[in-house]
Amino acid sequence: MTAAVIETDAVVIGAGPIGLFQVFQLGLHEVQAHVIDALPYAGGQCMELYPDKPIYDIPGTPVTTGRLLTQSLLQQASPFHPVMHFSQLVESVQRLDDGRLHITTHTGTRFTTKALFVAAGVGAFVPRKPLLPGLEAFEGTQVHYPHDAPLAPDRLAGADVVVLGGDESAVAAALEAVHGGSGQTSARSVTLVHRRDVFAAEPATLQALAAARAAGQIRVVAAQATACTADGNRLHSLQLLTAEETELSIPVDHLMVRLGVSPKMGPIADWGWTLERKQVPVSTETFESEIPGIFAVGDINFYPGKRKLILSGFHEATLAAFAAMRLISPEKKVLLQYTTTSPRLHQLLGVGTQEKS
Amino acid sequence: MTAAVIETDAVVIGAGPIGLFQVFQLGLHEVQAHVIDALPYAGGQCMELYPDKPIYDIPGTPVTTGRLLTQSLLQQASPFHPVMHFSQLVESVQRLDDGRLHITTHTGTRFTTKALFVAAGVGAFVPRKPLLPGLEAFEGTQVHYPHDAPLAPDRLAGADVVVLGGDESAVAAALEAVHGGSGQTSARSVTLVHRRDVFAAEPATLQALAAARAAGQIRVVAAQATACTADGNRLHSLQLLTAEETELSIPVDHLMVRLGVSPKMGPIADWGWTLERKQVPVSTETFESEIPGIFAVGDINFYPGKRKLILSGFHEATLAAFAAMRLISPEKKVLLQYTTTSPRLHQLLGVGTQEKS
Repeated sequence: MTAAVIETDAVVIGAGPIGLFQVFQLGLHEVQAHVIDALPYAGGQCMELYPDKPIYDIPGTPVTTGRLLTQSLLQQASPFHPVMHFSQLVESVQRLDDGRLHITTHTGTRFTTKALFVAAGVGAFVPRKPLLPGLEAFEGTQVHYPHDAPLAPDRLAGADVVVLGGDESAVAAALEAVHGGSGQTSARSVTLVHRRDVFAAEPATLQALAAARAAGQIRVVAAQATACTADGNRLHSLQLLTAEETELSIPVDHLMVRLGVSPKMGPIADWGWTLERKQVPVSTETFESEIPGIFAVGDINFYPGKRKLILSGFHEATLAAFAAMRLISPEKKVLLQYTTTSPRLHQLLGVGTQEKS
Repeated sequence: MTAAVIETDAVVIGAGPIGLFQVFQLGLHEVQAHVIDALPYAGGQCMELYPDKPIYDIPGTPVTTGRLLTQSLLQQASPFHPVMHFSQLVESVQRLDDGRLHITTHTGTRFTTKALFVAAGVGAFVPRKPLLPGLEAFEGTQVHYPHDAPLAPDRLAGADVVVLGGDESAVAAALEAVHGGSGQTSARSVTLVHRRDVFAAEPATLQALAAARAAGQIRVVAAQATACTADGNRLHSLQLLTAEETELSIPVDHLMVRLGVSPKMGPIADWGWTLERKQVPVSTETFESEIPGIFAVGDINFYPGKRKLILSGFHEATLAAFAAMRLISPEKKVLLQYTTTSPRLHQLLGVGTQEKS
């Protein structure tokens, strides 16, 4: 954790649509941004909540999806080469003596920046965790969450695997444990624990589950996990309370938690600003918060008239970029240039200045 | 001019990108809009100033053009069936006793509306006119401007045609007069008058002009028109001052004015509001002007931080639609619904409510 501090002009928290458009707008001002996101990929709510559902109100785009919009915004931002820091949660922000901000993430990445853009939406998408005292000691070794780096298939070989959850990703994790990486049975036992014997998954996934159950490869237990037991420094078994109110203990070498992800504001809520309805009040002129140098754009901010719409975040990020130039390049005169006509913007975007066709 | 007054909830002035998105946002609130524009087609500045030039800063659209953006916005607004009133200039707005607004256009269309959205950009695009006293008496009969309804080709047969202007549309008008509708010489004489013998047109157009000059079909005079002479109630001749300072009189049956179009604020400037930098001050909560019921969105409005960007107009039109519902349907509770999830919005948009795929 002794990596050098990254010195930069702009840090953006959140790689959702507004964070990505913030990168684009900063790029038009010749500012390169570092972007931090809790997820291992870009897209934020668009990718977590509705990757394949239609969106009809992006202006000039009669229909798109969360995934397609994310791809378009990544492409639009790409000329400005943002540096992405995925799978990281922001832990602290401190003011330095020279007025800049010092930011650290939970993996130890550190930044010093002139401006910070909080495009954190409804918060960082983090895995929901079961309430099992003592379980956290085994995170990363025997307890695995969505978005964790994938386990090497040989680590599951001969193991007792328990999956908690009832959605597509839970059933998929159970099937993966059965089939390993090679199409052969891999784990010793695979138990899928969900409060009811009903799973919300695609028809093909449900069919594969039925086949694996019929073949005795997956056992489904309708129950809730109530406790876990360790044997020395190893997770050993899981205690369950079944739907019929009977207690049950099952062995576990690897616990795959697939209870979904939910957004958490995390430390951002305690940065010393006064939140309104859990949102950060901002000026509609600059989209700066009450903390100088920290801008808030998209669903996380609040002002009179605020509507949580992606198209409003695009406007907010644009005005925030203009306003932040006062901090980033105080000596530079900030002009509005049009991407249609400005040769300098064409150069930055990597497109030829085109003559009248 | 005794057509019935159109009673409506919403009138939008301007069919440019922001006016079109205003229609879409009103549609999401189940409000159908009437749209007035000086041009004979949608698109505003996008179509008049840069129809085929690239635009790079529409969020989620890495590259488009004025024409393509206009098409997309027309498509997006189409489920809400806006009623378009093209080639009309707004002449007056008056407050009725019941608080509604009465609007008239220069062709006599009249509206009574609960809310008015001024998305007039930099003003109405109207043809530039030569300063020739008495000329206006012949407008529509012998004097023709860009966007006028096309002349029947037989009206040019045997006529002395004069074209004023030096751009693509001027040269094209001269060539059209030569070739008529049938590929045969149509007019008796065609004179192209421009201050210099240099024309800003496509290479193919310039080639056709050179050929027509060589064939004696078009005469080019480098001159300025200084006066016109009438013979009774007929325009008879045009007086020119050539680049060599000699005076010249040429006969004219039809004068095609092709001096371009330029935006004019027109009567909007005098509606009793205090303009700032020729823009209409608005609240950033409602985008309502100081005149109740009149909202201003896009390039025509002003507030602290304002940048004349299309993407800002999209946000402004959206919040204006929400705010206007207080006037349009005071009894209705206005909720933010998402196009991705709301079955009601899917019904309005004419799309099926889709299940998780």
